[in-house]
Amino acid sequence: MIGGHEEPRGEILARFGDMVQKGQAIALLTLATEEPQAAFQRYRENFRHLGVPVVRHIDARTREDCSDEQGVRILEEAGGIFFTGGDQLRITSVLGGTPYEDALRRAHLRGAAIGGTSAGASAMSATMLVGGADEESARRGTVRMCPGLGLLRDAVVDQHFAQRGRINRLLAALAQNPGTLGIGIDEDTAVLVRPDEEMEILGSGTVTVLDARGAYVGDASEAAVDVPLRLGPVALWALPQGSRFDLGRRMATHNDAFPGQHSEVPASR
Amino acid sequence: MIGGHEEPRGEILARFGDMVQKGQAIALLTLATEEPQAAFQRYRENFRHLGVPVVRHIDARTREDCSDEQGVRILEEAGGIFFTGGDQLRITSVLGGTPYEDALRRAHLRGAAIGGTSAGASAMSATMLVGGADEESARRGTVRMCPGLGLLRDAVVDQHFAQRGRINRLLAALAQNPGTLGIGIDEDTAVLVRPDEEMEILGSGTVTVLDARGAYVGDASEAAVDVPLRLGPVALWALPQGSRFDLGRRMATHNDAFPGQHSEVPASR
Repeated sequence: MIGGHEEPRGEILARFGDMVQKGQAIALLTLATEEPQAAFQRYRENFRHLGVPVVRHIDARTREDCSDEQGVRILEEAGGIFFTGGDQLRITSVLGGTPYEDALRRAHLRGAAIGGTSAGASAMSATMLVGGADEESARRGTVRMCPGLGLLRDAVVDQHFAQRGRINRLLAALAQNPGTLGIGIDEDTAVLVRPDEEMEILGSGTVTVLDARGAYVGDASEAAVDVPLRLGPVALWALPQGSRFDLGRRMATHNDAFPGQHSEVPASR
Repeated sequence: MIGGHEEPRGEILARFGDMVQKGQAIALLTLATEEPQAAFQRYRENFRHLGVPVVRHIDARTREDCSDEQGVRILEEAGGIFFTGGDQLRITSVLGGTPYEDALRRAHLRGAAIGGTSAGASAMSATMLVGGADEESARRGTVRMCPGLGLLRDAVVDQHFAQRGRINRLLAALAQNPGTLGIGIDEDTAVLVRPDEEMEILGSGTVTVLDARGAYVGDASEAAVDVPLRLGPVALWALPQGSRFDLGRRMATHNDAFPGQHSEVPASR
């Protein structure tokens, strides 16, 4: 999952290419963008340059398109499936409940690399962040969410995170369910989630992880819409390239770099 | 301390006015702004409207101005001293080490209300945030700080906080000294710090409090300038109007609203 604006032929896309086995293709889904052909050309050139010779375009634009037998076969045979950026609602509203989505889930289960940038990253989680106020005070109920593709459980993903000042909309999402982990991904930055639920950070920015399980989150009822949030303490990590974080245990696992995380949190808190 | 853009005749300035005893004046320092006369006119009208009839302009622009005996007398007699917004370096570079600063500190000790908005809020702390990248990934050493007025200890204050996406520059400051509390104030939002070091939140936005004492903050040495931050877990609170936070004990003290804060932080962290 990439936070948008990744370097075209940089480390992040190279890592995605490395996960595709030799002889297998990448299936590129351009559902989110309004310029699917241009996006396909761009990513095909990038991935070719990075050593994946075959990139196949799944140019679905309607729900009807998502039953196409040839497209299903491409998804079934792909070593990697990649979602471009754009509008994440175009991904879920077109793909959800179609044979393409079934094929995507089967590909995930068999271990294909599934990736996406920007909208394509947001769509991965069980509940997807749709919108909300950037660069505003944290307010209840102003964040919009809907069911996502469900490949990542118990987490909500936001992208362009530092660049668009989005921490408060992610906190507003967590206040509605503190059991969900918040993952905010900066531009040109990515998280690689392994089958064992450990995630690794790639790229030039940082990933902000927010765990509100230990926090008071206040009255999240419908009556409290649009009032400022009152919550805390939320545990926050800023994780750069090379960091690892265990999604199950909710702790940084790159222990050399996080020797202090097992120390006592000050008792006064 | 106000995060900037407060409502001209709203609750925040009204509370400041209420702290000024009857018969006493507000001394208005316009050091930070390039339009001192216009700022004075505006605040004089606002404070008059809010029930403080006498607002006296301290129109210091140079270090020499800050020895003026009449100005010292105004500061000594004032029930409140208020700093307008603008550039916080104009406050510290002009006022620091002058008779005006001495008079300000004496006024603080005798219990006068000391306030400021935007730059005027940042300047209050012992170490003042000068600048740094807004809306960027958290990077080491990219935040600039200098000695402030020193009326608030052990905390660094940032303003226009949500509106300018500033959490990462505040985290970068804390990574250089995790003993310092981070206080990020949104626009039209304020913290009122009492002599007992309890702070109360006012206004329409939220105040973000960051405590990195329990966090690993990584290599903060000079060698590590401009690399992405690796830190956590930092304790984060979002506090709206009516919340209280004890700066000494570093906990929310409005217990009705924070029943959960004494619960165990998950052991896995």
